[in-house]
Amino acid sequence: MSTPRDVAVLVGSLRKDSFNRKLALALAQLAPAELKLDIVEIGQLPLYNQDDDDNPPAAWTAFRDRIRRADAVLFVTPEYNRSVPAPLKNAIDVGSRPYGQSAWDRKPGAVISASPGAIGGFGANHHLRQSLVFLNVPVLQMPEAYIGGVDKLFDAQGNIGNESTRAFLGKFLTTFAAWVERNAAS
Amino acid sequence: MSTPRDVAVLVGSLRKDSFNRKLALALAQLAPAELKLDIVEIGQLPLYNQDDDDNPPAAWTAFRDRIRRADAVLFVTPEYNRSVPAPLKNAIDVGSRPYGQSAWDRKPGAVISASPGAIGGFGANHHLRQSLVFLNVPVLQMPEAYIGGVDKLFDAQGNIGNESTRAFLGKFLTTFAAWVERNAAS
Amino acid sequence: MSTPRDVAVLVGSLRKDSFNRKLALALAQLAPAELKLDIVEIGQLPLYNQDDDDNPPAAWTAFRDRIRRADAVLFVTPEYNRSVPAPLKNAIDVGSRPYGQSAWDRKPGAVISASPGAIGGFGANHHLRQSLVFLNVPVLQMPEAYIGGVDKLFDAQGNIGNESTRAFLGKFLTTFAAWVERNAAS
Amino acid sequence: MSTPRDVAVLVGSLRKDSFNRKLALALAQLAPAELKLDIVEIGQLPLYNQDDDDNPPAAWTAFRDRIRRADAVLFVTPEYNRSVPAPLKNAIDVGSRPYGQSAWDRKPGAVISASPGAIGGFGANHHLRQSLVFLNVPVLQMPEAYIGGVDKLFDAQGNIGNESTRAFLGKFLTTFAAWVERNAAS
Repeated sequence: MSTPRDVAVLVGSLRKDSFNRKLALALAQLAPAELKLDIVEIGQLPLYNQDDDDNPPAAWTAFRDRIRRADAVLFVTPEYNRSVPAPLKNAIDVGSRPYGQSAWDRKPGAVISASPGAIGGFGANHHLRQSLVFLNVPVLQMPEAYIGGVDKLFDAQGNIGNESTRAFLGKFLTTFAAWVERNAAS
Repeated sequence: MSTPRDVAVLVGSLRKDSFNRKLALALAQLAPAELKLDIVEIGQLPLYNQDDDDNPPAAWTAFRDRIRRADAVLFVTPEYNRSVPAPLKNAIDVGSRPYGQSAWDRKPGAVISASPGAIGGFGANHHLRQSLVFLNVPVLQMPEAYIGGVDKLFDAQGNIGNESTRAFLGKFLTTFAAWVERNAAS
Repeated sequence: MSTPRDVAVLVGSLRKDSFNRKLALALAQLAPAELKLDIVEIGQLPLYNQDDDDNPPAAWTAFRDRIRRADAVLFVTPEYNRSVPAPLKNAIDVGSRPYGQSAWDRKPGAVISASPGAIGGFGANHHLRQSLVFLNVPVLQMPEAYIGGVDKLFDAQGNIGNESTRAFLGKFLTTFAAWVERNAAS
Repeated sequence: MSTPRDVAVLVGSLRKDSFNRKLALALAQLAPAELKLDIVEIGQLPLYNQDDDDNPPAAWTAFRDRIRRADAVLFVTPEYNRSVPAPLKNAIDVGSRPYGQSAWDRKPGAVISASPGAIGGFGANHHLRQSLVFLNVPVLQMPEAYIGGVDKLFDAQGNIGNESTRAFLGKFLTTFAAWVERNAAS
């Protein structure tokens, strides 16, 4: 069997008990053999300032290198104020620079948004997708993944009790694996 | 004559020689007597993390207080990756919390986006507006302000040489002053 | 008591038994004395083509005149393909022309989106708001109105059985009435 | 040599002398051998109404069949009121139904927006992309194509005089051809 694809997973919330982090961990368990999901931390990245690109913080360089090594990217994010949470937008901005050296270029990607409310982060999901056009990340279209009621999704062990959600996410990941294979940069 | 309205100006770029900062400073000069524009710094704000709301960083508290004191808000921002720059989104997220205590509520607002390219930050402009719906900031609609070619807008003293742009921004500010008056929370 | 404000209501679906039409009719019943809601039909409008502005179809002219007479506008719409349904976008385009003679200019407005699913038309709601910026329609921000499960909202008489939804919509309309008063063009 | 891919081209404006139609015709000339571009008319489609799906107008059926036969889709569109023109949104809605029988599913696609102004239809471009997520159309990300100043692009014969624009569009089409090949449904 071939080596699984290395998928960098970015979690939009920095909260320690973040539902989105739990979701990312559950996804890593559910992933098919073709994908290996690895959460890449973003909370330590200083706010992007172009002036610092001449002498970038070590955290920026390490993050950019990690994304460059990845075969694909998966975003798992809540919605803050009807858009992408600042820490995730910061990771995107840091990874996109310096100009002409974006780490995101041509990495196949997918977006999962989740929220306690019913809407499931629609606004964050599509704002993120608009950025991914410019970053030249080919993004999985269907199935869309808006996970509402995420606060009630996990049991005490962090497992997804709900069978239909687990099946949906399993299918999402299988479809994503085919998308990564088809659109892999190399 | 009555006291001018206190307008908190948020600049989306942290770069020292930011064109948007120059634009904000030029706007402060052009503003009618009814408005006093004051740049509120955002680069020092730690990335928003809900866990820290129990014991918030001093920079968050000071920022929230400053916004609460303002009569109105004006956003002057570039576009990063077809959306709102992370430092500005972070300021928005910080100001919106803790839950139920948003500093933005009912402050009349306006958006100016600017970029060196022709498009003038359309994507940032409208993503920001989507957040402002949720934040209950009544936003000036027309005139829209997409400032393209912002890198060529200023002379060595930071003045806007171009007569028609100066006239446009003057009219923008006058219209905004009427908007603030009409929609002021108090 | 003063004359109630004339609110033109546009329903995004043309279906005879449209849930959004039912919602619009229920809203007309719930409206406070300050507002009189009147559904303006849009299904008869030929597709917008600039060539026809020299000799416009009678339906266009009648529609434009009706909107011009209105004090305010209220959009009640489903989401089609994550955006505004074509018949509603067509009404918007028809009403916005000829160039320089938009019927929408400065009419205070509000948006309600509704769908059978959980998301409640978020995509249609915000795409519509982006158009309303350009049309210079000052739009009510909060409360946002995303009505999910609209297919289960009405009893056989078209009444909204659910008490909390009825209370929410009543509050929405009261807030809108104050918004119309504050931002009325005349 | 193999048969070229059949690309259905949808033009967002119905105007007889539409700049976007001229652009579509110029694109058909510039296309590489792998693609055959064919404009599919949309102005004759009655406004979408779900009630008519039981007994659909002949124009709807013919349009749906034409899209189903296509290997790929290319949208060439102006922006109306910061969003997708109604005739194009109508074509999208008509093609997406009846429920479960969308003609768009898995057709690789691309978007070109154009306007006389500087912004080049950014709003229409990205609103369209949001619909294409739901329609499961894998969309080319880069190069983005926002064509400003489209009213000055053509000579009397409808050719694109500007060398750099012609080169850009040629490269766009070549990249699209590779995208179609990679993401073709069959």
